[in-house]
Amino acid sequence: MIVLGIDPGVANTGYGVVAHQRGRVVALDGGVIETRAGTDAGLRLAHIHHRVCELIDTYKPEAVAVEDLFFGQNARSAFAVGQARGVVILAAGQRAIRCASYTPQQVKTAVTGSGRAGKEQVQRMVQTLLSLPELPTPDHAADALAVAICHANGAPLQAAMERVGA
Amino acid sequence: MIVLGIDPGVANTGYGVVAHQRGRVVALDGGVIETRAGTDAGLRLAHIHHRVCELIDTYKPEAVAVEDLFFGQNARSAFAVGQARGVVILAAGQRAIRCASYTPQQVKTAVTGSGRAGKEQVQRMVQTLLSLPELPTPDHAADALAVAICHANGAPLQAAMERVGA
Repeated sequence: MIVLGIDPGVANTGYGVVAHQRGRVVALDGGVIETRAGTDAGLRLAHIHHRVCELIDTYKPEAVAVEDLFFGQNARSAFAVGQARGVVILAAGQRAIRCASYTPQQVKTAVTGSGRAGKEQVQRMVQTLLSLPELPTPDHAADALAVAICHANGAPLQAAMERVGA
Repeated sequence: MIVLGIDPGVANTGYGVVAHQRGRVVALDGGVIETRAGTDAGLRLAHIHHRVCELIDTYKPEAVAVEDLFFGQNARSAFAVGQARGVVILAAGQRAIRCASYTPQQVKTAVTGSGRAGKEQVQRMVQTLLSLPELPTPDHAADALAVAICHANGAPLQAAMERVGA
């Protein structure tokens, strides 16, 4: 199973592609989609949408996993992040690919065992889980890989539970 | 000048198309793009995006005017509205059409003269300004017509001011 993880943002949208193979998760790609401040908002969102579509068409993921709102976020920044998140979910919807949403707490718990883990702790665990030679950077790429791992590790478990009627 | 006004929302996105002709504003179209609760978020956003693209392709507006965040909105609802707004701004960006943003206070002031006007007052003034035979309904369509009027009436003034170097 291939999963595309996304940490949405208008200026920086992190992405991470992982594959769940024989009981372990491996990284296929990761990085950041950047847009320039001061550029027209429509063009910035069009760039994010275009790049996410390219990633979906390249890796053909079974699911797109996206970070949800974090607790305590203010309305103005939630509004801005929501716009970037909207075009990511749209890209998945236009290709009939399932989109799953995880709160930052769920992602941290899935990756480190603690919902209160710091950024560096998440980066270190992403490095370990994916056997990467270096710490994944920048933060947005690491966060996107983490949400992809969260879905890749959780979804088979959930599917197994559904099979046994849990 | 033709303007497409949008009042974005995941369940109900209001739209209104107006034309500025010989010193007055006339309505060309208005209504609501509805999506069903419980449907996949990606499919809901894809429907909104598809309909907004259709409206742009039909009326070829010079600008798309969209409602901004209202003061006091909570982060969760701002996040949801932001997603719908993102796909609207994307549709404009993909066609290189300028997108203008107005706060509800700016729209109310432009239409009624007061930033504190109630919903019914806005509807009545939209009816009067567009010489409609009935009150525009539902609310979302009236709000979308109001933001389109706000842009149609304000933009020529601004262009005139720019010509005189104000």
